[in-house]
Amino acid sequence: MAEKGTVLIGRKPAMSYVLAIITGMSSGDSKEITLKARGRAITTAVDVAEIVRNRFLKDLKISKISIGTEEIPPREGENRARMVSTMEITLSK
Amino acid sequence: MAEKGTVLIGRKPAMSYVLAIITGMSSGDSKEITLKARGRAITTAVDVAEIVRNRFLKDLKISKISIGTEEIPPREGENRARMVSTMEITLSK
Repeated sequence: MAEKGTVLIGRKPAMSYVLAIITGMSSGDSKEITLKARGRAITTAVDVAEIVRNRFLKDLKISKISIGTEEIPPREGENRARMVSTMEITLSK
Repeated sequence: MAEKGTVLIGRKPAMSYVLAIITGMSSGDSKEITLKARGRAITTAVDVAEIVRNRFLKDLKISKISIGTEEIPPREGENRARMVSTMEITLSK
């Protein structure tokens, strides 16, 4: 995990992140974990939160969901910054 | 719009839904609108909410975000129902 209590959701299959969260929540004394995603990974973040909560850690509640927008620097050959949507989902015991 | 105050987000480009929301919110006396999406369209729903709020109707607040899971009947040739993530975003004046 990138920082304490945070999982950055990217392009891996949802189950990789599910496993990371289950491990993180069972090992330490962490009481909450935040999933962060942007762009296409937002769908994966929702999948991960739902799988963890419905199949594995049924005592977890969704304590916060927020969405936002971030500016991404232009890619090579482009001259305009792009805006990308972001999402954060916090799960708590 | 499918029902009063609800927009179902599907596979069209985000701007089609943005336009539908701007029209809906300006014409009537509706004070809130809910975007509903599932699966891959969840990312589009977040994009739509952010574009409407940041570029067009800046007085709108996100009053509620919720996520869930729905069971989808099996496709032809498959024998298991699939689970799909859902999301609802409510924007209010």
